[in-house]
Amino acid sequence: MPIKLDRTRFIETMREQAKIGGTSDGGLHRLTLSDADKEVRDWLCDQMEAAGLSVRIDEIGNMFGRREAMSDTEPVLVGSHLDSQPYGGIYDGALGVVAALEFVRILNDNQIQTERPIEVVNWTNEEGSRFQPVLQGSGVWAGILDLDEQYASTDSKGNTLESELERIGYKGERPAEPAEEYDSYLELHVEQGPYLDANDTSVGVVTGIVGLTWGEVTFQGEANHSGATPMHHRSDAMVAAADLVTDIRRIPGRLGDRTVGTVGSISVEPDSINVIPGEATMTYGFRDPKATVLDEAETQVSRAATAAANREGVEMTREDRARTEPVYFDDQCVDAVANAAEELGYDAMELFSGGVHDATHAHEVCDAGMVFAVSEGGKSHTESEFTSWDDCYNAANVLASATLALANNEA
Amino acid sequence: MPIKLDRTRFIETMREQAKIGGTSDGGLHRLTLSDADKEVRDWLCDQMEAAGLSVRIDEIGNMFGRREAMSDTEPVLVGSHLDSQPYGGIYDGALGVVAALEFVRILNDNQIQTERPIEVVNWTNEEGSRFQPVLQGSGVWAGILDLDEQYASTDSKGNTLESELERIGYKGERPAEPAEEYDSYLELHVEQGPYLDANDTSVGVVTGIVGLTWGEVTFQGEANHSGATPMHHRSDAMVAAADLVTDIRRIPGRLGDRTVGTVGSISVEPDSINVIPGEATMTYGFRDPKATVLDEAETQVSRAATAAANREGVEMTREDRARTEPVYFDDQCVDAVANAAEELGYDAMELFSGGVHDATHAHEVCDAGMVFAVSEGGKSHTESEFTSWDDCYNAANVLASATLALANNEA
Repeated sequence: MPIKLDRTRFIETMREQAKIGGTSDGGLHRLTLSDADKEVRDWLCDQMEAAGLSVRIDEIGNMFGRREAMSDTEPVLVGSHLDSQPYGGIYDGALGVVAALEFVRILNDNQIQTERPIEVVNWTNEEGSRFQPVLQGSGVWAGILDLDEQYASTDSKGNTLESELERIGYKGERPAEPAEEYDSYLELHVEQGPYLDANDTSVGVVTGIVGLTWGEVTFQGEANHSGATPMHHRSDAMVAAADLVTDIRRIPGRLGDRTVGTVGSISVEPDSINVIPGEATMTYGFRDPKATVLDEAETQVSRAATAAANREGVEMTREDRARTEPVYFDDQCVDAVANAAEELGYDAMELFSGGVHDATHAHEVCDAGMVFAVSEGGKSHTESEFTSWDDCYNAANVLASATLALANNEA
Repeated sequence: MPIKLDRTRFIETMREQAKIGGTSDGGLHRLTLSDADKEVRDWLCDQMEAAGLSVRIDEIGNMFGRREAMSDTEPVLVGSHLDSQPYGGIYDGALGVVAALEFVRILNDNQIQTERPIEVVNWTNEEGSRFQPVLQGSGVWAGILDLDEQYASTDSKGNTLESELERIGYKGERPAEPAEEYDSYLELHVEQGPYLDANDTSVGVVTGIVGLTWGEVTFQGEANHSGATPMHHRSDAMVAAADLVTDIRRIPGRLGDRTVGTVGSISVEPDSINVIPGEATMTYGFRDPKATVLDEAETQVSRAATAAANREGVEMTREDRARTEPVYFDDQCVDAVANAAEELGYDAMELFSGGVHDATHAHEVCDAGMVFAVSEGGKSHTESEFTSWDDCYNAANVLASATLALANNEA
C-alpha cells in the first residue's frame, strides 16, 4: 500500500537543509567535514532524535538513525548523503536524506509499525571533491575501502580526513562496518543526467549503475623553441594528446548507446605560449552498463594512444586509475520501486545510472536499489541544478512506499 | 681584414660567466634581475672597465661599455644578453656578450684604433620568463615599449621590474633611449634551431627574423557529469580545443616551408577526471618570414576555431596576444657578416631566425644584423643546449671581423 509524505513539511525540510551552506546564487557549498557539513549533521541529529530515532555515528562519520520494529529481523537501510560539490546544487544527495527522514516522520504521524527496523543513513564524503576517493563512508562501511587509508587521505590544505572528523566531532565510536545483517538498502537521488527529462518522466526506477574504467596517458616528446623548430623536426606532446582526445570522442559511438568517454583533465609542460610542449598528461574515462564494453574501450584507447604517439614521434605511457564493475540492482528492490511508482500512479521509467552512488557499495552488503528524481536538462554538480518540488515529492513518495513495502516484506 | 680572438681567453671567459648562476647539470639559471644576474652584471662591469671601456647603465638596466674611436661619428653597437631562461643553457645570449667583450680585448691587445666608436651592450630581460614581455630592455631603448609600463610589470611573486632594478643596483641614470645616432648593431647568438646543424654548418649569416602572430582561443561549453551525460548531449570544450590543435598542426604545411604553428599552452575547467570540461583555453602562435603568410595563418585559425566550435556546439572567442612583423636585416650588416665568414674561410649559410632577438628592436634604431652559432640538434632553453668551443669560436670571430669592418666603414 503506497504512502505519501506531508508535502508542506517535506518542502520545508528541503528548504531548511538548503540554508546550511547555501550560496547567494541558490546553490549549496557544503564540502564534506567542513563547518557547514558539521552544522547540517548537527541539524540532522536533532531532527532524527526528535523523530524518535536512536542516532549512532561510526568511525568514519556515517550517521545512522534507527527506528525499531515489531520484530528484531534484518533492518532496511534508507538514505543518501548531505555533503555537496563545491558550489553544487541543493538537491543531489540531500533529497535522499530528507526523503528518508520524512518517511520516518509520516510513519510516526500515522503510528505505523513495520516488520523490520528502519535505519536512516547519511554517508560521509560521497562527493570525493575534498577528500578522495568518492563514496568514502559507504566504501569503508561495506569493506571495500580500508579505514586507516581513508583516515590518512588529505585535502588540498593537507588536513587528514581523521583530523577533520575529530575537529567537527563526528569520529564516532561505532565500528565502520555493518552492525548486523541488513535486508536491503534504498536510495533516492537526483538523476544527474538527461534521460528522464528527455522522456518527460518524473521518476526513475534504477536497474543498475554503469561500470567505469579510468586511466591516465602521458605523452613524452621534446620541449623546444616554438619559432626556431621546423614542423618536421618536432615531437609535440600536445599534438599527440589532441589526437587521442579526438579518438576518445569517437570510441563510444562504435561501442554502444550507453557508452560514454571523456577527457576531463589535461596539462602540458612547460605550458608556455612560446615552447613546444615536451610533455602532456591527460585523464580519460569510459562508462557502460556492460563490463565487456569497458574492456573493449580500454583496448581501443590503448591502440589509439599508441598510434597517436607513433604519428608524432613521442613516447606514450598509460596507467590505470580506477575500475568499477557495473552493478545490477536486486529484484526485490527494483520491483519495490517499480510497484510503488505504479501504485502511486506516477510516470516512471527504468534506467541505468550513469554516475556511481553509495548504493554501489551498499549492494556489496545487502540487496540494493535506487529511485531517481528527474534533473532539469540533466544539469548536475552546479548551482543551477533543478528539480521541481512536484518531481521531488513524487520521487520521495516512491522511496517511502518502496521502503515501507520492503520493511513489511511486501516487496 | 678579418680578426681572430684569443681562443684560450675566449673559452676561459665563457666558462667564467657560466659559473655565475651555473647549475649542477651544467646549465644556467640566471633569471633577469635575480641575485645571479646582479653578480654577472658586476662581473661584466669589472671586465669592461678593465678593458678600458667607460660603462653606463640606463634607466632599465641596459649596460653599455664604450670604446672611443679616431673620430666621433655614429658608433657601432655589439652585444646581446646575459640573462637566461629557468634552467637554460650557458651559451644562448651570453656567447654574444662574451664575444663582444673579447672583440674589444683583442683590439686592445693589438692596439687597433677604429674609425667609429664601439659600444658593447648587455640588454635587460631578453628572455621574458620572469618579467614580460621579452626583449624588455632593447624594446624600451628603441622606443617600442613604454618605460613606466615596463617598470610596473611584475614577476610571479609580485615584485615589480623597477623595484628589482633598484634592489640589485642597476636602475641607471642614463635615459633608456639611444644617446646618439648609431651606425649599426651586430649580435651573435646561438641559433636555437636545427638548420645549421642539419646542414653541418658552423656559422649562420642571419638575413632576418620571422614575424609572429600569437593568439588565445577560449571554448565555452557546458561542464557536466562525465558518466550521466550521453555523448550526443554534450558541449565538450576539450573536444573542440583538441580539434583546433590538430588543425594548427596542419596549417603550416599549407602555407610555407618556413611556417611553424604551435599550441604551447592549454587549460580546462574544472579539470577533473570526472567532469566534462565546460571551458578550454589555449594559446597558439605562428611564425613566418612573410607578413602575408601570418595574415593567412590567422584567417585559417579563425575559420578552424569557428568550425570546431560549431561541430561540438560550444561558444568560441579569440583574442590577439601579440604580433611582430618580419625583420629584414640591412645590407651593410648582412654583407659584413657574410664577408667576414668568407674571409675567415668558415662554412657559413644564410638563414632566417625563427626566434626574436634584441636585434629586432635595434633594427628600429639603426642598421642591424646577426651572426648565429650552430646549436647541436637545435636544442635551446634547456641545460642540454650545446655548441662546441670550435663553433663558438668561429662564430665569435665572424662577429669580431664583421664589427671591425663596420667600425672602419669597410663593410
